[in-house]
Amino acid sequence: MSQRVVILAHEKFPGRSKTANGILRYGDHEVVAVLDRDTAGDRVSDHLPDVQDAPIVESFGRVDAEQVDQLIVGISPIGGAFDESWRPDVRAAIEAGCDVVSGLHYFLNDDEEFSALAAEHGVTLRDVRRPHEGLGVSDARAGDVSADVVLTVGTDCSVGKMTATMELAAAAEAAGIDACVIPTGQTGIVIEGWGNPVDRVVSDFTAGAVEEMILEKGEEHDLLIVEGQASILHPAYSAVTCGILHGAMPDRLVLCHEAGRDVIHGYEEFDLLPPAEYVDQYESLAAPVSDAEVVAGALNTSGIENDADAEAAVAAFGETIDAPAADLVRFGADDVVEAIR
Amino acid sequence: MSQRVVILAHEKFPGRSKTANGILRYGDHEVVAVLDRDTAGDRVSDHLPDVQDAPIVESFGRVDAEQVDQLIVGISPIGGAFDESWRPDVRAAIEAGCDVVSGLHYFLNDDEEFSALAAEHGVTLRDVRRPHEGLGVSDARAGDVSADVVLTVGTDCSVGKMTATMELAAAAEAAGIDACVIPTGQTGIVIEGWGNPVDRVVSDFTAGAVEEMILEKGEEHDLLIVEGQASILHPAYSAVTCGILHGAMPDRLVLCHEAGRDVIHGYEEFDLLPPAEYVDQYESLAAPVSDAEVVAGALNTSGIENDADAEAAVAAFGETIDAPAADLVRFGADDVVEAIR
Repeated sequence: MSQRVVILAHEKFPGRSKTANGILRYGDHEVVAVLDRDTAGDRVSDHLPDVQDAPIVESFGRVDAEQVDQLIVGISPIGGAFDESWRPDVRAAIEAGCDVVSGLHYFLNDDEEFSALAAEHGVTLRDVRRPHEGLGVSDARAGDVSADVVLTVGTDCSVGKMTATMELAAAAEAAGIDACVIPTGQTGIVIEGWGNPVDRVVSDFTAGAVEEMILEKGEEHDLLIVEGQASILHPAYSAVTCGILHGAMPDRLVLCHEAGRDVIHGYEEFDLLPPAEYVDQYESLAAPVSDAEVVAGALNTSGIENDADAEAAVAAFGETIDAPAADLVRFGADDVVEAIR
Repeated sequence: MSQRVVILAHEKFPGRSKTANGILRYGDHEVVAVLDRDTAGDRVSDHLPDVQDAPIVESFGRVDAEQVDQLIVGISPIGGAFDESWRPDVRAAIEAGCDVVSGLHYFLNDDEEFSALAAEHGVTLRDVRRPHEGLGVSDARAGDVSADVVLTVGTDCSVGKMTATMELAAAAEAAGIDACVIPTGQTGIVIEGWGNPVDRVVSDFTAGAVEEMILEKGEEHDLLIVEGQASILHPAYSAVTCGILHGAMPDRLVLCHEAGRDVIHGYEEFDLLPPAEYVDQYESLAAPVSDAEVVAGALNTSGIENDADAEAAVAAFGETIDAPAADLVRFGADDVVEAIR
């Protein structure tokens, strides 16, 4: 049964509410309302036409709490801090018996008021960014599961790996494949309702945190699509990428890239390499644990207005990586699903 | 001024006391005594001929505590647990006003008795395996320091990267080079008395934890030798290796290998690749942040009895990686120091 949720997105909807938008687009939650004091009175469909619709209200008090299971914090300011202006909504949700889910660095369970209130009302505060205590070193067993494992990998951060993962899973399901997303980052975890925040685990356990999820789901589904993170050549975050690659022991890789991106986001003194070089890097690094090849590409063309230009960019990308490619959001995922199955 | 230390190594000296042996061999500590109830009465030189000598006694009570600054836990059982049979020695050291240093997973600061006693006696408990709170994401600035940065990399865990790091630093110093070790693991940190335990930091901060150390020392010395960890192709630990490689932004690499090792230690279903393939992997993965090449090899030949056979193995290793090679412990480090300077 899908969860009935309210999503907190004050002052950030829809332009800076990545988690809220992800839930509206990909989650199987029943969204009862979005909280945003700036756009209150509008509906989601006034701003995002192609996702689940819901009313936008200014506070949790305006919602019929009887109809709600969970409040989800759907925004994450830089640094992951908790904004005190959200406190009345979180308090009201707990008092109404709702669980609260958050991907913030600020842990709700460490907040004295919230933890006391949650205990009093018997609700759960779920800090998805806090790794669970049982994580450990990988046993290199992910390759043993009967499901096919596909990993989305990228040329940089924020090129669309999470989106590609969700689109591929949805398209696979639509094609009759029993697919499951393996979420590794906060938005994916909130959307899916489970998962390990791989970038927050002890570095020795990076591969193990991915392996654990694959072993958990690998006999229940036919296809696992693992959400990749960052890039294997990223100067700051490559450790996470490398751990996911070896921990997942994937059967196939999908290379994600953003059209026009030519330097590393936030590290602009570093050029991106030609996409084909990422293919070589990922394949040769994966080789000792799997014979995974890059079987498809996902190009994010959201920065290209004209459809013909976007199509040309996709075609050029496919040619350079020598694999079928698509903008999965703009042009559909069928070709890529065919390549990964 | 060098620290006057007592090293706890109960029932493990000298065969299973890696940290104790490292301090005796490479530390600039003045070792007042080794605690080992099994070999008490002997001297270190009865067991390890080529390291600093010291008496072996059965308990801290047998030591003149006036002559001691620190007790160091010099052994680490599997799992890093604290053995309760050590408690009287740790207690006696604290009561005598000595600091206590430990690389265990079990944190002395979290032990109620020890932390209360330490506060009472004004001593410091130093859990070197606990990362400090100020770590963060790398800014990719390690390449800016004026010192040359050399990183030891390996074909597997436990092939001799820590030993190679220490031998190279000592040989460089002997050759008149102002060299500094950048320690990344518990033994290196205990020997050097500082450092970040890179395998225990949040995975997002792996590169940043190395960068921080290089920025701290990069203007004070002419040569930094960074202690590498694991292997870039290790199925469980590669994330740590990858983060160190990109965080260090090294100028040169030294490839460490153990003669005869042909499968991954503890993951024996995975073959090691030919050493030359590690050269390619490390160089191509480093390329976006530095033009580092593998300029030398360090071969651990401790498993080969005959010197002539060991020399032949070193020669073959040097040929396969196309660089000067040596067993740094057995045959000296001069050639390799020449290659890295």
